[in-house]
Amino acid sequence: MLSNDTRFIVDWPINRVLLMNDKNYPWLILVPRLEGLRDFHDVPREQEGAFVAEINHAARTLKSITGALKMNTAALGNMVPQLHVHVIARYDTDFAWPGPVWGKQAAVPYADGEAERLIQRFIQSAE
Amino acid sequence: MLSNDTRFIVDWPINRVLLMNDKNYPWLILVPRLEGLRDFHDVPREQEGAFVAEINHAARTLKSITGALKMNTAALGNMVPQLHVHVIARYDTDFAWPGPVWGKQAAVPYADGEAERLIQRFIQSAE
Repeated sequence: MLSNDTRFIVDWPINRVLLMNDKNYPWLILVPRLEGLRDFHDVPREQEGAFVAEINHAARTLKSITGALKMNTAALGNMVPQLHVHVIARYDTDFAWPGPVWGKQAAVPYADGEAERLIQRFIQSAE
Repeated sequence: MLSNDTRFIVDWPINRVLLMNDKNYPWLILVPRLEGLRDFHDVPREQEGAFVAEINHAARTLKSITGALKMNTAALGNMVPQLHVHVIARYDTDFAWPGPVWGKQAAVPYADGEAERLIQRFIQSAE
């Protein structure tokens, strides 16, 4: 999933930031570039602060550029064991609202240029 | 939901720790005792470290006493707007595996004494 269903956005000091290729929801995946992590609590203490700061910076930025009502921040990883954190912009008009987004409907890939525009807005706003 | 469907476990410096009254999954809810928070990234920076340390301590403790395969750590809050973090012990034999637990089946309340025993084990192991 992590490489097949996503687009690369940027590498931050701790996390690789990916965009889920599903235009149903503006949806980031943050993957810490550290070996052998599975659970959220597996991040070493000395990196925990920077790890969480990046997750929160990603969430604030995505909320700001999308005007989302609510952000969902979640580390599940039952299907893909490598630790990754979902940061998802939610609206009370989205398909899955108010339920979680997983497993509700098939992903709808972005059309040509749409993902690139969102990625560029994210990178510029996150600076 | 937060008071009707849960049992009180303990107050930590940042979070109130609750047990979901659903024996399908060992499932904690951590609620920061701060006013006006909705998203995970709303926790003030000066409390972010302690907030996350408590979440991770809860997850490590619950994983240890339950022997779970995987922990799910998630702040969704689409239905109950007040910020709360789910810490859920997962097994590859549980009902929802490998999907998320939300909305899969009705909660099964603990029988008399069962929740109390889990709460006591959690409190002792978390010390």
